[in-house]
Amino acid sequence: METTPGAGTPEDERTARVALMRMAEAGDAVMGRLIAWCGPRRALEQVRRGSLDSDFAAKEAEIADRSGRRSDLTRMVAAWAARYADPHADLATGREGGARLIVPGDSEWPTQLDDLGDARPFGLWADGRANLRFACLRSVAIVGARAATPYGVQVAAQLASELSARGWTVVSGGAYGIDAAAHRGALGGGSPTVATLACGVDQCYPRAHEDLFRVIRFQGVVVSEWPPGAHPTRPRFLVRNRVIAALSRGTVVVQAALRSGALNTATHAAGLNRHLMAVPGPITAETSEGCHMLIRSGKAVCVTSADEVIDLVGSLGDDLAPERRGPARPRDGLNDETLRVLEAVPARGGAGTAVIAVEAGVDLTTAIGCLGGLAAAGFVEPVDRGWRLRRQDDLRGRGDHGR
Amino acid sequence: METTPGAGTPEDERTARVALMRMAEAGDAVMGRLIAWCGPRRALEQVRRGSLDSDFAAKEAEIADRSGRRSDLTRMVAAWAARYADPHADLATGREGGARLIVPGDSEWPTQLDDLGDARPFGLWADGRANLRFACLRSVAIVGARAATPYGVQVAAQLASELSARGWTVVSGGAYGIDAAAHRGALGGGSPTVATLACGVDQCYPRAHEDLFRVIRFQGVVVSEWPPGAHPTRPRFLVRNRVIAALSRGTVVVQAALRSGALNTATHAAGLNRHLMAVPGPITAETSEGCHMLIRSGKAVCVTSADEVIDLVGSLGDDLAPERRGPARPRDGLNDETLRVLEAVPARGGAGTAVIAVEAGVDLTTAIGCLGGLAAAGFVEPVDRGWRLRRQDDLRGRGDHGR
Repeated sequence: METTPGAGTPEDERTARVALMRMAEAGDAVMGRLIAWCGPRRALEQVRRGSLDSDFAAKEAEIADRSGRRSDLTRMVAAWAARYADPHADLATGREGGARLIVPGDSEWPTQLDDLGDARPFGLWADGRANLRFACLRSVAIVGARAATPYGVQVAAQLASELSARGWTVVSGGAYGIDAAAHRGALGGGSPTVATLACGVDQCYPRAHEDLFRVIRFQGVVVSEWPPGAHPTRPRFLVRNRVIAALSRGTVVVQAALRSGALNTATHAAGLNRHLMAVPGPITAETSEGCHMLIRSGKAVCVTSADEVIDLVGSLGDDLAPERRGPARPRDGLNDETLRVLEAVPARGGAGTAVIAVEAGVDLTTAIGCLGGLAAAGFVEPVDRGWRLRRQDDLRGRGDHGR
Repeated sequence: METTPGAGTPEDERTARVALMRMAEAGDAVMGRLIAWCGPRRALEQVRRGSLDSDFAAKEAEIADRSGRRSDLTRMVAAWAARYADPHADLATGREGGARLIVPGDSEWPTQLDDLGDARPFGLWADGRANLRFACLRSVAIVGARAATPYGVQVAAQLASELSARGWTVVSGGAYGIDAAAHRGALGGGSPTVATLACGVDQCYPRAHEDLFRVIRFQGVVVSEWPPGAHPTRPRFLVRNRVIAALSRGTVVVQAALRSGALNTATHAAGLNRHLMAVPGPITAETSEGCHMLIRSGKAVCVTSADEVIDLVGSLGDDLAPERRGPARPRDGLNDETLRVLEAVPARGGAGTAVIAVEAGVDLTTAIGCLGGLAAAGFVEPVDRGWRLRRQDDLRGRGDHGR
């Protein structure tokens, strides 16, 4: 299931990004700035040639000076170049495994990732039926301890299930404990769920989650910044956490010890001006100490129900849109094709997918993709006779009063 | 065990207060203002005569006008007068039961109750070995649900025990559940505990707490605004809660449903600018909903340990003192007699009570009372050979850094 590349993402640029994703480690800010400076194709050329644009090098030297560290651009470039491998091999492996590549400019690119600035992912590999951009328009991250208690597992599953039932996508990391409970709860609620991995989307880590990931691919999407075949490493988990935080409107920490990966995700969420929430628990359990610390310090809001989470993350579109003028309109985030499909969905009764496709002037596959995304984002809902618009009260009521 | 009346509390004023305590309901602001206007003796005369000072009546009419309610001073005075009973009977009953009367101006009067303004108690009946004023110099209220869970009981007992072991007095209401657990924990920690009842100190409500109250009288004190023999009523529990809040530096709510007496105490604590704290718990339990509401709304600080409570309620004397100049000195709150006893306690080794009494120039009974109070307030500690000064680091260290 390959997404149609959006305008402005030529094939050679996509291919160049695939090469760069293998050469630089995800989140590398220097590579991020290099791509921003001259585009992925020229960035790849320069790195392989072994010398960067002198203006860029001068600017990097300035940045290094300001932060008081030594610039070692030459060695960095050499290290990148040494890791070069034919990107077509990754593309072929990905395609064979059923994964697709999503890069900035694609219609499926979640533009809220741009908030990561220089650390924005170079691209994302995705495997799953849900449209990542649509799914994450209304999304909340639920994260927490691997060594969760039965209380934590119950709370994570319950929160995720209620959020999902109300049209919110749950983003998590696919790990044992809270992550798995969140994904499972979300699957039960009917909305897509997004597992953001620290290894290739074709890898299964942890091994025991093979079945879970299979269901997530069916009702959501598994994503990764690392090429197919990549193994998880300790630093990758931490780097990955910034994507979980950036994809979603807010992060809920369900259980976390005082030193934990979940608190790392929480720090990213706060740094990105996303809502940070924590679930309290018994003060007799170490697994809630991190949550209580976040609440006590005022970094996180104490949340005890899906209602309270939704009250906070608010209405569609107004949080992640950088400079919205006038009243926030949920449709502002949609591209032209999707808007046309949305216009073709009736408010009452229902219309079949084929009828909507004809009305919107798109092919059936596109209509299916758009409708799935619109449903995940809460614009439309499936009925016996096809699709109809979801009442906008459900979507916008909270946005007007909840903040 | 009658406390020596302090200077300025003549016997006829004390007796008048006893009469007024039976005539007006505790917390009656009009009576509070009448006593403040002309003193308890003249207040009693006027009420029994059936007519108040015309200047006072005019002022009350103004207050009633401003708050938009009808002044009905005549009816109020008649109702008070109708409830008159010979105060010497109450005094005799109290004395026979082993209770003492504490009124404003007495050396045992906890002056922080003056923060209640017009609703300040007219007087307090006390039964127990601890000196109420000293015990409450360093005190924290622990309150919560009657229908507490095992988690709540465990947490209340643990917090109270640790606070008590570190020289803090635990104030609570003697009820089932959290209150009882707090008192029991405090008893285990070695410091006094104060049970503030909504019935006469000679009454046992709830019945099952007869043994608990007996131990509290031995290692603390049971107090009440109502005369001996008075029964608890629903409104009295709520009126009583303001005294629990006012006596202590801060109130910790351990478990509370969304509508509960504990939240009423919390409201008083906040209104009196006392520290308000709440202990989080499982979000799956209704008994923690009130706590989470307080935390979410920012009214209460989330606390998870005795350390965090002490960090908040801070150093001795600086919270409740209205206008302290220069660095807060813990001894500022002590009267002359107690200061002389304190000066007579050695810093090293130890001295027996009789030696200290001679050195301080007070009789043995006074020395025993003062030493008990000083120990409760953390100034001195018992050692094998009698008493010695407690190191002031323990007392003042937190005050300098903890806030």
